[in-house]
Amino acid sequence: MMKNAIVAQSGGPTTAINASLAGVIKGCLESHEIDVLYGALNGVEGLMDERLVNLTDIFDHNEENLNVLKLTPAMYLGSCRRKLKDVDQDSSEYDIIINIFRKYHIHYFFYIGGNDSMDTVGKMSRYVKEHQMDVKVIGIPKTIDNDLVVTDHTPGFGSAARYVAASVLEMAHDTYIYNTKSVLIAEIMGRDAGWLTAASVLARNSYSRAPHLIYLPEHPFSKEQFIEDIKAQFKQREHIVIAVSEGLRDVEGHYISAETAAVDAFGHATLSGTGKCLEGLVAEKFGCKVRSVEINVLQRCAAHMASATDIEESWQLGLKGVALALEGKSGEMSIVCRISDEPYQVIYDGADVQQIANAEKKIPTAWINEAGNDVTEEMVRYLRPLIHGSVAVPEQDSMPHYLFLGEAL
Amino acid sequence: MMKNAIVAQSGGPTTAINASLAGVIKGCLESHEIDVLYGALNGVEGLMDERLVNLTDIFDHNEENLNVLKLTPAMYLGSCRRKLKDVDQDSSEYDIIINIFRKYHIHYFFYIGGNDSMDTVGKMSRYVKEHQMDVKVIGIPKTIDNDLVVTDHTPGFGSAARYVAASVLEMAHDTYIYNTKSVLIAEIMGRDAGWLTAASVLARNSYSRAPHLIYLPEHPFSKEQFIEDIKAQFKQREHIVIAVSEGLRDVEGHYISAETAAVDAFGHATLSGTGKCLEGLVAEKFGCKVRSVEINVLQRCAAHMASATDIEESWQLGLKGVALALEGKSGEMSIVCRISDEPYQVIYDGADVQQIANAEKKIPTAWINEAGNDVTEEMVRYLRPLIHGSVAVPEQDSMPHYLFLGEAL
Repeated sequence: MMKNAIVAQSGGPTTAINASLAGVIKGCLESHEIDVLYGALNGVEGLMDERLVNLTDIFDHNEENLNVLKLTPAMYLGSCRRKLKDVDQDSSEYDIIINIFRKYHIHYFFYIGGNDSMDTVGKMSRYVKEHQMDVKVIGIPKTIDNDLVVTDHTPGFGSAARYVAASVLEMAHDTYIYNTKSVLIAEIMGRDAGWLTAASVLARNSYSRAPHLIYLPEHPFSKEQFIEDIKAQFKQREHIVIAVSEGLRDVEGHYISAETAAVDAFGHATLSGTGKCLEGLVAEKFGCKVRSVEINVLQRCAAHMASATDIEESWQLGLKGVALALEGKSGEMSIVCRISDEPYQVIYDGADVQQIANAEKKIPTAWINEAGNDVTEEMVRYLRPLIHGSVAVPEQDSMPHYLFLGEAL
Repeated sequence: MMKNAIVAQSGGPTTAINASLAGVIKGCLESHEIDVLYGALNGVEGLMDERLVNLTDIFDHNEENLNVLKLTPAMYLGSCRRKLKDVDQDSSEYDIIINIFRKYHIHYFFYIGGNDSMDTVGKMSRYVKEHQMDVKVIGIPKTIDNDLVVTDHTPGFGSAARYVAASVLEMAHDTYIYNTKSVLIAEIMGRDAGWLTAASVLARNSYSRAPHLIYLPEHPFSKEQFIEDIKAQFKQREHIVIAVSEGLRDVEGHYISAETAAVDAFGHATLSGTGKCLEGLVAEKFGCKVRSVEINVLQRCAAHMASATDIEESWQLGLKGVALALEGKSGEMSIVCRISDEPYQVIYDGADVQQIANAEKKIPTAWINEAGNDVTEEMVRYLRPLIHGSVAVPEQDSMPHYLFLGEAL
């Protein structure tokens, strides 16, 4: 009897999520248990709409394309931001999906995503179990936010961290050239967890201490203290580079943002303007040159700055996801466990997705300095190995050569 | 008798301006005519303040550091934004400078910069000539804006163009993943000349036509036409990527910007907000997902995306500047002349700086399509060779390893 598999991607893009997809494809192609691997377009939405592609056909005996896929940013299969309804309230979505599973002889379902995707993995694995279907449902992590619990860190984070740190160093060079006081504010992604903002610390080297101040959403932000911090910095230096999270909030929990926060389908606040708001404040209080730079979507898609460690681990977590399924596991997510910092060593494992879905890993208080304007050495030790190594993105006409599915857009 | 030289850098930073500095250093080190090469910190400001470093000491027999300098973004010697006064009005600045020249036995002065710096080169060369001093004053071009006349293109432009094009491609991948209508607006530097915005066209490949619309400051911008252009695009595709110059103006010459334009020391308008303004317009008219990304200072300092062609040419223009001075030329700027597009061939020459200072090269009307929302094939042929080739930035702790002068900041 045929045993097939489906893989899909969901949530916000990262530089490494296609490396995990490549790992899943490789694992399935090499398994004698799995006949055909399908890809569902746009996550569970495309799965329900039966928008499927045959990945076995596309990638079998095509190692070269698999390698290009590993370094292609964003999502080869497309994404969605859909959270399945609670099965007690409405099981219709689940019924559509299990009908697709039956039609295509699906015995393995791999879902690559973040928090909300792990919620889907948990719900689906329980549903198929309750219906006594032989379908193993496995989650594979991704998120630049690094906010999943249990796993030491998440695929996509290391590459985003490397981009953020290199960009802060390059922007520091850009600001150091003038012989006049200046403040540069880099606004970095991370709504509730400040991991990516913290990663800007890796920009520091023997000649540049930028970012001189780091503000994280885990610590209540005070505009008054911010002004005092800048005053203290100006006593030591002319140029101040500041890293701020987009999600800074005051002690009452209100966002430090000039704009009203909108809300997405998951009830998350959509932010912008923290950097611009603080830029205005600095201009008003100090009257010096000030610029805010929103390190925008490039931090999650600039594949030319990907971390080799991140790409390799993301690939391995895809492979591990397939291995877990073939061992008979379901409702688990593949995770990376750190054995040591120096030399950096990890092992891959599986963990119950129930522990992970809807939970959020924030920065431990002990890794933020007392003043709430910097991170500690422990944080640097944690971060350093994750950005290790560069990748060589293939080129065509001197532009990055990536893989793309479907009609030209 | 000792014959020494001074070099300085001025204006806004680029990824390639240190490659030109490295060329000047190399040329001076190899010349038997020049004993010591000094670097003035912060352009003519540091020159007047006698803030000089001995570059011969730093770089002689240190080929490795010279190579790191070639790939270091921004300005090793620092910059300033100072335009010398008209000599008829006030010659005091010139007198300070020629006293420094006398004190340090300076016979050659190299100034690397853009439009305003070439104004300084012109004024200084006339002043020393009138005072019968044996000082050759030579300009070496740089500007990401590519708006200098006579030279085929300017050092720094190719690298910025490569960064812009790669970033637009990566942002297109980022937007293509969702199955819902979306508009992404990339705001690109270039106050009056749209060369860098036009370079976004190089992001187009076999599977992605992004940017689907390109708006340049050379063509009057109409909000009504912009809305019509987007409507037409939505008939063909779900995702629209738009490249806009920061300096878009309406038919009456007013900036399309949500914010009031300030004015810098040279009377240039300082802009921000064109992308944000258009983002608001799209949200209002179409109600779809829309995001504007200001491709900020990284377009002029992201050395990891430098164009190998640009770095090599910038280096050659530094060498050429020294050669011109040694031939006895003064009041000239080194230029690059294109011999052919395919194969791409150039020669280096010198041109009277009077032709160049205070003039501005805009995009020829024939290179913009009639609708004013795209560029032509001639533009693509012009741009393509300039982004050719990638560079391998040396690394330390997986971060770019650059060269820095002076105390840690």
